[in-house]
Amino acid sequence: MTPVPAGAGKNTRNVMVNRGPFTVPGFVAGAAASGMRYRGRPDLALIVAEGEEGCTASGVFTKNVFCAAPVELCRERLAGRRAKAVLVNAGIANACTGAEGLRRARETACIAAEALSCRAESVLCASTGVIGMDLLLEPVSEAMPALVKALRPDGWESAARAVMTTDTVPKMAWAAVEVGGKTVTVGGIAKGSGMIAPDMATLLVFAGTDADVAPEVLDHWTKAGADGSFNCITVDGDTSTNDTLIVLASGAAGNPPITDIASDESLAFGRALAAVLRDLAVQLVMDGEGATKLIEITVAGAENLEGARNAAFTVANSPLVKTAFFGEDANWGRIVAAAGRSGVALDPGRAALYFEDLCVFRGGMPVRENDIEERASRIFKQKEIRVRLDLRMGEASFTAFTCDFSFDYVKINASYRS
Amino acid sequence: MTPVPAGAGKNTRNVMVNRGPFTVPGFVAGAAASGMRYRGRPDLALIVAEGEEGCTASGVFTKNVFCAAPVELCRERLAGRRAKAVLVNAGIANACTGAEGLRRARETACIAAEALSCRAESVLCASTGVIGMDLLLEPVSEAMPALVKALRPDGWESAARAVMTTDTVPKMAWAAVEVGGKTVTVGGIAKGSGMIAPDMATLLVFAGTDADVAPEVLDHWTKAGADGSFNCITVDGDTSTNDTLIVLASGAAGNPPITDIASDESLAFGRALAAVLRDLAVQLVMDGEGATKLIEITVAGAENLEGARNAAFTVANSPLVKTAFFGEDANWGRIVAAAGRSGVALDPGRAALYFEDLCVFRGGMPVRENDIEERASRIFKQKEIRVRLDLRMGEASFTAFTCDFSFDYVKINASYRS
Repeated sequence: MTPVPAGAGKNTRNVMVNRGPFTVPGFVAGAAASGMRYRGRPDLALIVAEGEEGCTASGVFTKNVFCAAPVELCRERLAGRRAKAVLVNAGIANACTGAEGLRRARETACIAAEALSCRAESVLCASTGVIGMDLLLEPVSEAMPALVKALRPDGWESAARAVMTTDTVPKMAWAAVEVGGKTVTVGGIAKGSGMIAPDMATLLVFAGTDADVAPEVLDHWTKAGADGSFNCITVDGDTSTNDTLIVLASGAAGNPPITDIASDESLAFGRALAAVLRDLAVQLVMDGEGATKLIEITVAGAENLEGARNAAFTVANSPLVKTAFFGEDANWGRIVAAAGRSGVALDPGRAALYFEDLCVFRGGMPVRENDIEERASRIFKQKEIRVRLDLRMGEASFTAFTCDFSFDYVKINASYRS
Repeated sequence: MTPVPAGAGKNTRNVMVNRGPFTVPGFVAGAAASGMRYRGRPDLALIVAEGEEGCTASGVFTKNVFCAAPVELCRERLAGRRAKAVLVNAGIANACTGAEGLRRARETACIAAEALSCRAESVLCASTGVIGMDLLLEPVSEAMPALVKALRPDGWESAARAVMTTDTVPKMAWAAVEVGGKTVTVGGIAKGSGMIAPDMATLLVFAGTDADVAPEVLDHWTKAGADGSFNCITVDGDTSTNDTLIVLASGAAGNPPITDIASDESLAFGRALAAVLRDLAVQLVMDGEGATKLIEITVAGAENLEGARNAAFTVANSPLVKTAFFGEDANWGRIVAAAGRSGVALDPGRAALYFEDLCVFRGGMPVRENDIEERASRIFKQKEIRVRLDLRMGEASFTAFTCDFSFDYVKINASYRS
């Protein structure tokens, strides 16, 4: 699959997204090991804007009622749309920890602020890991000198590795586009592979750009970018307490400031950010817990977007559908049955189901061709599979990305805390 | 656990439900092997009302838009609320098979009607198995003489075995209660262990009673019984195309006909039917695909029933919660997080979470007692576990029954068709 799958959000077309290490002018990043929960691996990441006064910042967070302490802190601190640094820890989520959890989140921000000689209020925090465990402050204090010392322009990669929990690979994506005669870079890192579902997957995403962009324009494209990426994916239908997307803009590219959301420059920037975020979203699904396949579920021809979205996610989250993909069993009945219980307006006699370009169900019954099972089976052996359910009721369409459901998903999640 | 768990529907109290073989005056049942899909085991079941004119009958069916051909047929034939027989096949669902599927369902009813010398319209059909496969008529024809010959008063057990697919045990339950000075029996058989979710689990349930009960009263208690049983359980959140509950009443008990829904006799009968159906529902969850544990999730103190129900099912369907139960890992954060994304009105600072009587989360934070993890772990080793989330927002409460998510669920479902 190309880095950005065909059929992806229209805004992401014509943007070449690269996977792998990158730098973003105006930022340094780094990682260190605190030993807070994991042994022998970095578990703290720090991203710092080099500007004295920090940089423009925007964020999108979990909609879970039980939001983690660092999410509360970020929401509060992003009101001014500026930030100097983001401190991230992996292993302990600092969620469902009450007032004590919030106090500890503030305390870690203080520790970083002191080391960076900046105001504590300009430091954002994010955590991922086990819910209900207390964040440990001493390990953060002890690791801070090493963490600050590790800061480098190309430190995003080590940051991407440090924030991993059940992830098997670090996720990085970047793009460079021309905006107002200058080359602007957008780069992002992400973590997350379980508790992934829309309204923010269980994930942490930190993106940096050197574009000079007004806070309200950055807000707009951050929200739009989240909708077109992390709100289109699912691994297990669960929405985490800690989901965080933070986008930082240093302005170091020296482009004429983007202040008009509708300007060409704004659109070019928004497209690049959307493409990077979407590619990170696809990387998350491909690295879903136990995932062996990437599956693109499109519900087309729906009466409205909400119906298309519901049907696509009902199919994408069905354990029966997901285990069939794992077993490479082209059991299309499960897909049709999941759509049928989703509540979308649907006429059984009109709908048609396709695996790639192969129609397997139409007119309320199976397509009765001799070699159809064989052809469907071949498609199910692919590592990446496109499924398309055309309801033929209207014009709305939605694509959800999911992965299969394997033994390893159970293995990983039956023993996560031990 | 007692046959009917404490906290079950109020209507089921004081009814002693028995598991195991039973007979119901006025009915015979039996099974035979057609070889349609399974080899060397009975896969056809027949239940017949002995009365010349059949018996009173009521049904509740799947709400899936893609409903199977036999479901369509039953809906049509139950308009008159009478039936002579129910023919069931396992292995092929005859769902998503269009007009041809409906024709074949009618044809199997004809084959049975001919053998029983009754009108074809008085024969109901039910199917379970793979979606999209054509039902085979010849095997049904060939097996019909043996099937009719096998009919016996105690044939419900062999019928219960014949309708199994991924079930590991046959499910039977019965109760005897006094109604109007006569002993009335209610007995039922059920199958289903995957694609189980409310709005009818993926299941087939056939119950018989010798009560003399008016059609509209039977309808009332059949619907109420389904709500208090099969609409409270989930295995994987999927709703099948074939869900069918049929209740048959022969009147052989000779009780004064129950015609008034609000009468004591009606309530006594309704309670017995509800208790039998609820016990079958619990048996289904205990035999859920790959299940090793039965989990009772109660959301109490909700503002309204819909919120309580949504929250309970969101927790009960969460793969992260279910794998944690399989791993015997008392990871309460996943339960809280699932409730937090369910949409129920909830104040993080007020909610409290209990495993059995052990409070693990309260006031927005973990209960900080030294031995709490150890005590929670002991509870998680039980085969049957009660979870209670008290939202302290109102008076509404809902209990959902679910099972854990194991390697075997994936194994069973990755290779179901092969």
